Amino acid sequence: MKKKKIAVILSGCGHQDGSEIHEATLTLWAIHKHGAAYQCFAPNIMQHHVLNHITGQEMDEQRNVLIEAARIARGEVQDLAEFDAAAVDALVIPGGVGAAKNLCTYAFDGPQCTVNKDVEQAIQATYQAGKPLGALCIAPVLLAQVLGNIGDITLTIGQDETTAATLRQMGASHSPTNVGEITVDQQNKIVTTACYMLNSRVDQIADGANALIQAILDLTELN
Amino acid sequence: MKKKKIAVILSGCGHQDGSEIHEATLTLWAIHKHGAAYQCFAPNIMQHHVLNHITGQEMDEQRNVLIEAARIARGEVQDLAEFDAAAVDALVIPGGVGAAKNLCTYAFDGPQCTVNKDVEQAIQATYQAGKPLGALCIAPVLLAQVLGNIGDITLTIGQDETTAATLRQMGASHSPTNVGEITVDQQNKIVTTACYMLNSRVDQIADGANALIQAILDLTELN
Repeated sequence: MKKKKIAVILSGCGHQDGSEIHEATLTLWAIHKHGAAYQCFAPNIMQHHVLNHITGQEMDEQRNVLIEAARIARGEVQDLAEFDAAAVDALVIPGGVGAAKNLCTYAFDGPQCTVNKDVEQAIQATYQAGKPLGALCIAPVLLAQVLGNIGDITLTIGQDETTAATLRQMGASHSPTNVGEITVDQQNKIVTTACYMLNSRVDQIADGANALIQAILDLTELN
Repeated sequence: MKKKKIAVILSGCGHQDGSEIHEATLTLWAIHKHGAAYQCFAPNIMQHHVLNHITGQEMDEQRNVLIEAARIARGEVQDLAEFDAAAVDALVIPGGVGAAKNLCTYAFDGPQCTVNKDVEQAIQATYQAGKPLGALCIAPVLLAQVLGNIGDITLTIGQDETTAATLRQMGASHSPTNVGEITVDQQNKIVTTACYMLNSRVDQIADGANALIQAILDLTELN
């Protein structure tokens, strides 16, 4: 039987200005653990900024999202402009503030954010193909902004009411969850988990990523 | 009961010029999974160089090992100069070429390498305190160079005979292993696993890290 292939969109390397490293790594771990394969993607754009992850201060540097994402992907990362929904079985987006700064402008514009064109097209194409979508941590805001107008999609970002309110402004419903839990929108084939939007241990991030990938793979069987 | 605390020495963020991200993350995951706590450390030095992880080419940049390590540690990383063996129960060093370029000069000098003074002192102090040491992937070369002269220590770097020969030149014995396996030197309380020194899936890296941390915690009970 051919292995299921899951596309993973990265947004850099480091939770303050790129992909959250634990969430991204444990997504890849869960995919391999379930006998599936992954292909990492990232947009070939400059990061919004580079932050010193000790002080939180901006550094006088510029880094490229695709090149930094390769650190997590061990070099095997493709330009998101080349994404083809027909070539994969599902699409998953780990969190980290990079998802809200590099993949869209949510960190600055909230529910009025714009989404990177390649990211928007990848989400749209996967959804239109009837294939499952997953998002971790803050990344559900991307699904809300791209798909919120198509009908009632249900997402989780954990317990933070301010963020939940912006999801509703973008047209999505919010389902509160606790550490390691997932929300499955069966009808739209969308699975989300809050990860570091909640105060979590690393093994609890793994629990969430593992449950999300299991649910994503189950949903691929529904085609 | 007080949680066991394991020190983790990082060497940057990215397998070609720093810590291997999957190995580092899955070490932290295994520590939390087993109910223990971790404190990450890194030397406050500049990286040997910065590599583009897609092309493998050197980039015209300079990055600091401690600041980049904070991406993996989510900001909670301490200068290795402050390491106190009395404050921890064990010390673990994930791999990545950064271990062989930033923590010592093995990548350039092989068995004649010099080890960063803070790294050497941390290894020596932990060993002298009778506390367990762990190393993943290429990081066992650090233990060989620092402890190879104290007697017969046994390490694994997988199956690569060239690297195994340099371990022997530094005074250590080599035990060949396969994917996900560990080598336990019970007498010296040293546990090693080959990780990406072998062609591995991400979940197999997790198997190795998990077995290593389990063995490390078992060895802390022997004091």
